[in-house]
Amino acid sequence: MRLVTYKRRGWAGGKVGALRADGAVLDLSAADAQVSWDNMPALIAGGQGMLKRARAAAEAAPVVEDAILLAPIPRPLKNIFCVGKNYHEHAKEFAGSGFDATAKEVVPEAPVVFSKPPTAVSGPGDTIPAFLDPTGSTDYEGELAVVIGKAGRGIKAADWAQHVFGYTIVNDVTARTLQHKHRQWILGKGIDGFCPMGPAILTADEVPDPRALRLTTHVNGEKRQDAPVADLIFDIPTLIETISAGITLEPGDIIATGTPAGVGIGFQPPRFLKAGDVVRIEVTGIGVLENPVG
Amino acid sequence: MRLVTYKRRGWAGGKVGALRADGAVLDLSAADAQVSWDNMPALIAGGQGMLKRARAAAEAAPVVEDAILLAPIPRPLKNIFCVGKNYHEHAKEFAGSGFDATAKEVVPEAPVVFSKPPTAVSGPGDTIPAFLDPTGSTDYEGELAVVIGKAGRGIKAADWAQHVFGYTIVNDVTARTLQHKHRQWILGKGIDGFCPMGPAILTADEVPDPRALRLTTHVNGEKRQDAPVADLIFDIPTLIETISAGITLEPGDIIATGTPAGVGIGFQPPRFLKAGDVVRIEVTGIGVLENPVG
Repeated sequence: MRLVTYKRRGWAGGKVGALRADGAVLDLSAADAQVSWDNMPALIAGGQGMLKRARAAAEAAPVVEDAILLAPIPRPLKNIFCVGKNYHEHAKEFAGSGFDATAKEVVPEAPVVFSKPPTAVSGPGDTIPAFLDPTGSTDYEGELAVVIGKAGRGIKAADWAQHVFGYTIVNDVTARTLQHKHRQWILGKGIDGFCPMGPAILTADEVPDPRALRLTTHVNGEKRQDAPVADLIFDIPTLIETISAGITLEPGDIIATGTPAGVGIGFQPPRFLKAGDVVRIEVTGIGVLENPVG
Repeated sequence: MRLVTYKRRGWAGGKVGALRADGAVLDLSAADAQVSWDNMPALIAGGQGMLKRARAAAEAAPVVEDAILLAPIPRPLKNIFCVGKNYHEHAKEFAGSGFDATAKEVVPEAPVVFSKPPTAVSGPGDTIPAFLDPTGSTDYEGELAVVIGKAGRGIKAADWAQHVFGYTIVNDVTARTLQHKHRQWILGKGIDGFCPMGPAILTADEVPDPRALRLTTHVNGEKRQDAPVADLIFDIPTLIETISAGITLEPGDIIATGTPAGVGIGFQPPRFLKAGDVVRIEVTGIGVLENPVG
């Protein structure tokens, strides 16, 4: 199923709902009032029992009128883990752009992991505040993101699937000049609103093999990125093993797996985002994450 | 005043208390039962009113028997912001060590910021789990950390003091081989237990000028680091202005400001931490953060 967090006009917080194939949001709380449905990480931490309950509620749930989608996890409990240079063709375009200050090699020998703070998260339709990048070098990066279900440290690659709750889409928006200037990437990539996420979390049971998913990014209707997740340099099992080797992964943790070729700095001259642009990222089965630029 | 988070044997969570000059922990909840005192970030978000209340409670508070100090913020609401290469002599020793994969320059032109996840945080006396670093290259980094009080984005350097709640000590423990191998630093620095913090938050009213604070680090009684905070390359006002330029800082956010010269990789050959070692970091007025290595 596809789980979302939504609100209605005037609500302070969000509620967890289900997204029907036709885009309607289903009100789980109306079908099962014994659960509060106000917190996606809590639902995820509830494991298979809570997921079963959500599925049953969705069967009987009415449609929410005028639902506004938020990020499926509007306020993650820690920074989002992100992976850099994780598609071959993108690693090449990044190396060739002059914006990578961090290493001489084009293809990394090990996963390059950084983070974006929870304050960077925004939802479908929210404006990407490129005006917060004083260097005028704001770029998009469409990415498949993994949502962790069961906690673990020292997770072996072979056991990866036991720890995945589902998948969503992240736009790893980046101020390229700041990414380069500060060497480590959190300042260039962690700006408020530079982590659009959504529209939904597609639960893992509906994704027999994430390598079969395909990611496309359009800017103003022009296709810029188009790649199968199978092209990842470090695949999802490897990322989970590598990050969890020393760091405990927890329910609701998010790992953005990296972006394929076709970002703005892959063009000569670079095609940075400007006010009025619209970035639309689609991943098979998850849906469309579309955000205007302001 | 010095604020701490403590527990007693058998408690699941911690409580906020005050640390008396003689090291006794004062039970604020016994003196003012109308506040829950169970959450340092909530107390910080309460602003001057809550701080006044904590001060009044401390006047009348009894001593807690057998208090066990936790990190003052045991579970931060996002990753800890950390600054790399922010003392001249340390920038040199790091450049000379061969463990910096991220840039050719010795002294950075702009603050180098990365993060450590909340799962890395541990308290005074907790064991640093060097055994989680399979590369055997665990190193200490004594640091002054700033705790943000009032939220803000676009904070000007001149206004920095309005946004600081207080100061604590962080040991930015680092697996050097992983720091180098993964280019970005979160994996080498974000391991569980690699962010000892404490013993207390010294409130800003008792620190007229943080540059006057002095940091020392001893390993097994041998002095390794000894520097005034005045030696920072990018001072606290500059760090707050730089990070908050695009990222909203929130109450309870922590910024570890960087480590002076004298870390293990500053020696030839490097002197990495090993089981049985004891790292003791002291900062004027805040106290001593001491952790054994396991």
